[in-house]
Amino acid sequence: MLKGIPAIISPELIKVLMEMGHGDEIVLADANFPAASKARRLVRCDGHNVPDLLEAILKYFPLDTYVKKPVVLMEVVAGDSLEPVIWKKYHDIIKKYNNGSSAIEYLERFEFYNRASRAYAIVTSSEMALYANIILKKGVVSE
Amino acid sequence: MLKGIPAIISPELIKVLMEMGHGDEIVLADANFPAASKARRLVRCDGHNVPDLLEAILKYFPLDTYVKKPVVLMEVVAGDSLEPVIWKKYHDIIKKYNNGSSAIEYLERFEFYNRASRAYAIVTSSEMALYANIILKKGVVSE
Amino acid sequence: MLKGIPAIISPELIKVLMEMGHGDEIVLADANFPAASKARRLVRCDGHNVPDLLEAILKYFPLDTYVKKPVVLMEVVAGDSLEPVIWKKYHDIIKKYNNGSSAIEYLERFEFYNRASRAYAIVTSSEMALYANIILKKGVVSE
Amino acid sequence: MLKGIPAIISPELIKVLMEMGHGDEIVLADANFPAASKARRLVRCDGHNVPDLLEAILKYFPLDTYVKKPVVLMEVVAGDSLEPVIWKKYHDIIKKYNNGSSAIEYLERFEFYNRASRAYAIVTSSEMALYANIILKKGVVSE
Amino acid sequence: MLKGIPAIISPELIKVLMEMGHGDEIVLADANFPAASKARRLVRCDGHNVPDLLEAILKYFPLDTYVKKPVVLMEVVAGDSLEPVIWKKYHDIIKKYNNGSSAIEYLERFEFYNRASRAYAIVTSSEMALYANIILKKGVVSE
Amino acid sequence: MLKGIPAIISPELIKVLMEMGHGDEIVLADANFPAASKARRLVRCDGHNVPDLLEAILKYFPLDTYVKKPVVLMEVVAGDSLEPVIWKKYHDIIKKYNNGSSAIEYLERFEFYNRASRAYAIVTSSEMALYANIILKKGVVSE
Amino acid sequence: MLKGIPAIISPELIKVLMEMGHGDEIVLADANFPAASKARRLVRCDGHNVPDLLEAILKYFPLDTYVKKPVVLMEVVAGDSLEPVIWKKYHDIIKKYNNGSSAIEYLERFEFYNRASRAYAIVTSSEMALYANIILKKGVVSE
Amino acid sequence: MLKGIPAIISPELIKVLMEMGHGDEIVLADANFPAASKARRLVRCDGHNVPDLLEAILKYFPLDTYVKKPVVLMEVVAGDSLEPVIWKKYHDIIKKYNNGSSAIEYLERFEFYNRASRAYAIVTSSEMALYANIILKKGVVSE
Amino acid sequence: MLKGIPAIISPELIKVLMEMGHGDEIVLADANFPAASKARRLVRCDGHNVPDLLEAILKYFPLDTYVKKPVVLMEVVAGDSLEPVIWKKYHDIIKKYNNGSSAIEYLERFEFYNRASRAYAIVTSSEMALYANIILKKGVVSE
Amino acid sequence: MLKGIPAIISPELIKVLMEMGHGDEIVLADANFPAASKARRLVRCDGHNVPDLLEAILKYFPLDTYVKKPVVLMEVVAGDSLEPVIWKKYHDIIKKYNNGSSAIEYLERFEFYNRASRAYAIVTSSEMALYANIILKKGVVSE
Repeated sequence: MLKGIPAIISPELIKVLMEMGHGDEIVLADANFPAASKARRLVRCDGHNVPDLLEAILKYFPLDTYVKKPVVLMEVVAGDSLEPVIWKKYHDIIKKYNNGSSAIEYLERFEFYNRASRAYAIVTSSEMALYANIILKKGVVSE
Repeated sequence: MLKGIPAIISPELIKVLMEMGHGDEIVLADANFPAASKARRLVRCDGHNVPDLLEAILKYFPLDTYVKKPVVLMEVVAGDSLEPVIWKKYHDIIKKYNNGSSAIEYLERFEFYNRASRAYAIVTSSEMALYANIILKKGVVSE
Repeated sequence: MLKGIPAIISPELIKVLMEMGHGDEIVLADANFPAASKARRLVRCDGHNVPDLLEAILKYFPLDTYVKKPVVLMEVVAGDSLEPVIWKKYHDIIKKYNNGSSAIEYLERFEFYNRASRAYAIVTSSEMALYANIILKKGVVSE
Repeated sequence: MLKGIPAIISPELIKVLMEMGHGDEIVLADANFPAASKARRLVRCDGHNVPDLLEAILKYFPLDTYVKKPVVLMEVVAGDSLEPVIWKKYHDIIKKYNNGSSAIEYLERFEFYNRASRAYAIVTSSEMALYANIILKKGVVSE
Repeated sequence: MLKGIPAIISPELIKVLMEMGHGDEIVLADANFPAASKARRLVRCDGHNVPDLLEAILKYFPLDTYVKKPVVLMEVVAGDSLEPVIWKKYHDIIKKYNNGSSAIEYLERFEFYNRASRAYAIVTSSEMALYANIILKKGVVSE
Repeated sequence: MLKGIPAIISPELIKVLMEMGHGDEIVLADANFPAASKARRLVRCDGHNVPDLLEAILKYFPLDTYVKKPVVLMEVVAGDSLEPVIWKKYHDIIKKYNNGSSAIEYLERFEFYNRASRAYAIVTSSEMALYANIILKKGVVSE
Repeated sequence: MLKGIPAIISPELIKVLMEMGHGDEIVLADANFPAASKARRLVRCDGHNVPDLLEAILKYFPLDTYVKKPVVLMEVVAGDSLEPVIWKKYHDIIKKYNNGSSAIEYLERFEFYNRASRAYAIVTSSEMALYANIILKKGVVSE
Repeated sequence: MLKGIPAIISPELIKVLMEMGHGDEIVLADANFPAASKARRLVRCDGHNVPDLLEAILKYFPLDTYVKKPVVLMEVVAGDSLEPVIWKKYHDIIKKYNNGSSAIEYLERFEFYNRASRAYAIVTSSEMALYANIILKKGVVSE
Repeated sequence: MLKGIPAIISPELIKVLMEMGHGDEIVLADANFPAASKARRLVRCDGHNVPDLLEAILKYFPLDTYVKKPVVLMEVVAGDSLEPVIWKKYHDIIKKYNNGSSAIEYLERFEFYNRASRAYAIVTSSEMALYANIILKKGVVSE
Repeated sequence: MLKGIPAIISPELIKVLMEMGHGDEIVLADANFPAASKARRLVRCDGHNVPDLLEAILKYFPLDTYVKKPVVLMEVVAGDSLEPVIWKKYHDIIKKYNNGSSAIEYLERFEFYNRASRAYAIVTSSEMALYANIILKKGVVSE
């Protein structure tokens, strides 16, 4: 543990975040995501929810400003009538760390899986909200 | 061993079940299934039958509600006139844990083998009943 | 993730808990414990506190009734005037799962380190309370 | 699986039993034995009880007639007033396979642990009876 | 790279710093320290000086308050008349991060080497000042 | 398989026999010998008896004439009244290949085990005769 | 070394010859053959010529009678006017061990290389005669 | 193979000879030497005799002039009445390459074994002459 | 080091040269050749120039007479007006060892790279002359 | 290769030199030194002489000023009457790079071997001069 670094960020997670560069992507996966069968690098964060992880990560992790939509969510599957309530939280957190903008791309479920399987890492969580998976594309650290 | 977890579930089996996510599949194989030659991950449960394993696993493992038929059985091979008696037990157990539904897909023998070889894991058993192999697709844990 | 198993318990943690037998010991370490330099097996639970881990683990993990004091805490170092407030919580949780008893042994800091280095596993946490390290000796699962 | 070999005997277990020779020892451990921390070779048989394993193993495994007591049980710990009821079953099974004799040595708990840690293998089980651990010394196959 | 984390701290260095616990030690070695022949874990920071590393590390790394002197410097070798000018800087940086205190232990050169070889890690630098090696004992993160 | 080389000699066995030099020892172990727990190199010849192996091996393998007794048998254990009938066969085979001489050393059971554990290799067999283990010391090939 | 086995046959060579089965091929390569860059298994016999190796090998190694031409030589390259004198020796040795027959196939240089690179093994020699490479296809051991 | 280098010297042998320095020793072992059980590095030269190897090696390999006796032979074992005829050849070859001198040390059999097991390498041969093992101590290449 | 073998030829280099056969190729690369990224086997000869290596190697290494041009140089890149002066030396050395002939093929830069990447080995040097890379195809050793 | 770094210094050599710190030692070994049997790390520089290596290395490598004699040579063996002429060159080179001083320790041959075997690395050369081995103790880089 270190002073000032949120406890939710493990030694392995911060190392992975630092190794990533402009354009690399990381997936924050909810409790039901098939992470172990899809990840190139798997970082387990059992017991945590995604908003806490997202808030802690975005404190350090710039979003890519070279693409229109540096954040990806999984589209609601046809037939599912729910409105994912967690998305509101994501918008708020992303806006807070991204100059008030939260431009988000929506991908069909299996396209999302494919993109996740090419990401630099997948972070598992115990997030129980539905449609809570989120992909972040790293931007340029400029300060 | 731990309090309350069925003894039939080994440390390795519960770890595999926990790592799986939405859409990942697991095969419960009978005594004659060519599991060792086909499995990406092999969990041996020698001496146990499939209904006991199925009952213990479904206590923890939700079936996928995003597909019509989250359970797969192997079709009786043409020319085989038997009616697999174990299927009745499977229907009862699955209904009990799946809201009274047991929608099942039937696959031709070699298609079943192919699908099994892509599953997250194969669990061997000593089930002697014929046509007793079963594939389960994991659903969403929502409680 | 599985139905009914607390999200805070990772696949690796439950596997380790199940592998342990009567008399084996596990350390729940606070955020400042030198776990990486001392553990025979290290299970990271960054971001969690010890009471949550303790509560989740004791649901499954019986304490040893063959020794007088199956729980070990680290003695307050001479000169430290504090009264570790977290101990009250530990007493309550342990009593709840141990038939109303919370018989605890206190070990001097470096003796505690030595015993921890011989334990079956050390679980790291982000517990910020002082003197929050705790060793549990596994008892007999009898139900 | 093979014709005539009890399903409870896994491929790994029969391999280990066959590799053993005169004087080598195997431990059948109950659900609470600290097997993972003590074994030179570990064979997991989760979900099974010891009498079933013992019966299946002694069908193939001769006991040593060159020592007075080829079977070892763990002495009841001082203060424990119970009479281990499973021992009656063991006596019966051993007599059946050992010419009506069941000469047994009793070892104090920690001496039993030491001897187990030098055995050729430890077989875990889910036996819930107390004092159900048993060490078998292999004899000479003479037919 | 991440926002707000000094660029001088590499992914590997921050991981090592986070893994360390209360009482673990790290060596910041000058350009002439025989680090490769002595380290249990070696983290290279070529091109940097120790004051910059020290400043960056102490922002995150608390010094041990359970020992009188949590910082160790290498004693000037007998016959060397110099007054290591860099020590002034170290005093200032340590005071700044250690509540105005900079209690320092001085070890003879070869005792310093021995202690360094038991540390959790050695960080190499390109510090050219003489007698610039410094050992830090990690304290308790309490905020 | 090759022309003229007895089928009982496996590729691995003949390689081991050829690698051995003057004074190196090999153990032909009976079905009950604890070979797997004692051998530096283990060559399995399941299904074969020792006289067949001995006959096939001595066709190629000279006995050491620099020691009085280049062959070692295991002494009958005190209390065992049997006369090992297989020894007669060994004498005949050894005499046939050793110029009519069969000078044999007898070692107490546990000394025999120790010597076996230092041999160049142990060959397992399925020999059912009692006291059928035999150690051969390689001599000089002189033709 | 063993009695009666030609010294020119190394432990590794006899093991390779015994492992081969019906239809497997071995190349005896002359001093100039690019064996190290082409062989799946390489057995070095530096300092020996091919006729000595061929004579020693054919004593044990049957030629395939299921093909018309179980022996392959390399065709003289167009423009090379020489008549490879060593072929006469090969014919004589092969006839001696192959019931008076020496049916031989001739392959163009690069086809010979391709076939050699698929052989079970290539045996290097120091044979200086030109066009001295020879491939042998193993037959059935029937005695 | 290369121009001018004797075919009997394999790529591995010349590499070993070149790596050796002043004072390092190499053993040329006869067909009966227990080389595989004693060598730190083993170079097989099956099928060759020691005088041919010795002649080829001494063309490149200087003997040590800093010790009185840079060559070691194995003493005839007490009771063996033979006069090793091969020694005459060794004297002649050594004199030819060593300025007419062949100063030789004789070591008792088991002392010879010990010294051989510390040598830089042991070269096996198929030399059938008795007492044909020879140790060479490398001298200084001075031209 | 050995008597008579040029010091510039390392143990590893001579082993590689000896292992090569008829038609195998070796590259002598200048100081600027991307050898480490292209070589199947890399032999470093830092500090040496190519003419010295070429002279030492050709003493042992015959050039292929079965192709018209057993030597390959890299064509001067279009636009480069220089005349590679080192080629004169190469011609002289090659003629000296190749019966007065120095038939050379010229390959375009990237074709040269491709061919080099398929060679048996690449030898690095510190040759500073431009266009100094040279490929040698091994011929037949016939003496 | 890089601008300004002598070609004689290989990538591996400069890496080793850079890793070394104050007090670590390196051996420059002559062509006859038993380097391969003694080195903890071996860097081959075949074909080069020691003065060239020494000159190139000392350009980068400071000698230790904390010991009286940072350079070690091997004492002339008793009975050897020669005066090692190369020492004059060493004195000159060392003086040039060491402020006009060449304080040298002389060690008896076998003590020199022992010290060399504890050095950080041994660099082999093809230096033919006698008594040309030299140990350098690294000093402090202070500019």
